[in-house]
Amino acid sequence: MNTSGALNLSEDQLQLIINQVIGEYCTDADVGKKMIPIEASARHVHLCQKDVEALFGEGHQLTPKRELSQPGQYLCEERVTVIGPQGSFKHVAVLGPARSESQVEVSRTDARQLGVDAPLRESGDTAATPGLFLLSDNGMVQLKQGVIVARNHIHMTSSDAARLGVQDKQEVDVKIETDRPVTFHKVLVRVKDSFNLAMHIDFDEANAVGLPSGAKGELVA
Amino acid sequence: MNTSGALNLSEDQLQLIINQVIGEYCTDADVGKKMIPIEASARHVHLCQKDVEALFGEGHQLTPKRELSQPGQYLCEERVTVIGPQGSFKHVAVLGPARSESQVEVSRTDARQLGVDAPLRESGDTAATPGLFLLSDNGMVQLKQGVIVARNHIHMTSSDAARLGVQDKQEVDVKIETDRPVTFHKVLVRVKDSFNLAMHIDFDEANAVGLPSGAKGELVA
Repeated sequence: MNTSGALNLSEDQLQLIINQVIGEYCTDADVGKKMIPIEASARHVHLCQKDVEALFGEGHQLTPKRELSQPGQYLCEERVTVIGPQGSFKHVAVLGPARSESQVEVSRTDARQLGVDAPLRESGDTAATPGLFLLSDNGMVQLKQGVIVARNHIHMTSSDAARLGVQDKQEVDVKIETDRPVTFHKVLVRVKDSFNLAMHIDFDEANAVGLPSGAKGELVA
Repeated sequence: MNTSGALNLSEDQLQLIINQVIGEYCTDADVGKKMIPIEASARHVHLCQKDVEALFGEGHQLTPKRELSQPGQYLCEERVTVIGPQGSFKHVAVLGPARSESQVEVSRTDARQLGVDAPLRESGDTAATPGLFLLSDNGMVQLKQGVIVARNHIHMTSSDAARLGVQDKQEVDVKIETDRPVTFHKVLVRVKDSFNLAMHIDFDEANAVGLPSGAKGELVA
């Protein structure tokens, strides 16, 4: 012990501890940066209970197959065919739980193939959007509306928001460094304490940036 | 005339002249900015003369249908089917004139559908890239290599480069303002006095930014 009360560590010992702390809390690239995990959402469908039953039978309940990154959300065993005026996609993922209104989230590439002019919207904002048909082995429903291109957004808790210096509904810029680096502007922050920190982009955006799995973006503004 | 030698213009007259000059040289949004027209390239094929003849007959010459933005480049009457291990695209555009080597330019979305792992490359840099099959009504060729995702780039003349303050092979940042604004980083500048000023991006990038026709991007760094 020395008289100052400080720990008597060699430089090597100190460096070892620093390295352990860094290794525990962040990757090398993250040090001093506001990093956010990026997740690419493939085309998918949310169903209201009425449409669940029209497609899969009276009283049918969606069957969870795998938990998603946001707590309570899950990929279902059920799949549907999505049919537009100019094209269709088979075996499209259904995400649970059932919602108050059915909604189809596609990329612009998908929308062109389907032949629908899907607008860029926040999830749930389906007023005056195009519809299409959903088909299962057991039935078919016509959606009068609900086809959107989902606006990119970041899920985070209020403590994430405090740490990152942002607020609910704020628009921020996120840079993703790949061989095809891109900054997404006007990314919507969505704060809820049940969320896990993740930025959601669609497959057009993921392909435009050449997103590798496990990628992170940096909150730059 | 007044004694100072200045033109005796009313404020209204002056504003009219200013508006005419602005209207002539730039759109309102362009004033004081380094704006670049953006063009989205759909999937397409360049063919060597040997492959032209294998697909369309001995001695066949590509038939220009429409001039493209870069002088001397044209869309051909000829179309091909592109066949990969997991999917194919019919009626794919062939761009002329014939090149020394055949090359297929696809988006990452296309590459996934074809089932080929096409790398991000500059046009012409096809070493160690995957191949696939090209089919016409008259024949088929197997490309041993040549499938790429084209790296985004800006064509410009040396006087454009001087005006914009950039050089050949420089990497720059271009911001495109839409309802889904994006900055593309590391965009390659290509200077040749026969070029027309235009930034070329692929359909993944165009869809990610929700590119309207006639869009421009701003050179921001």
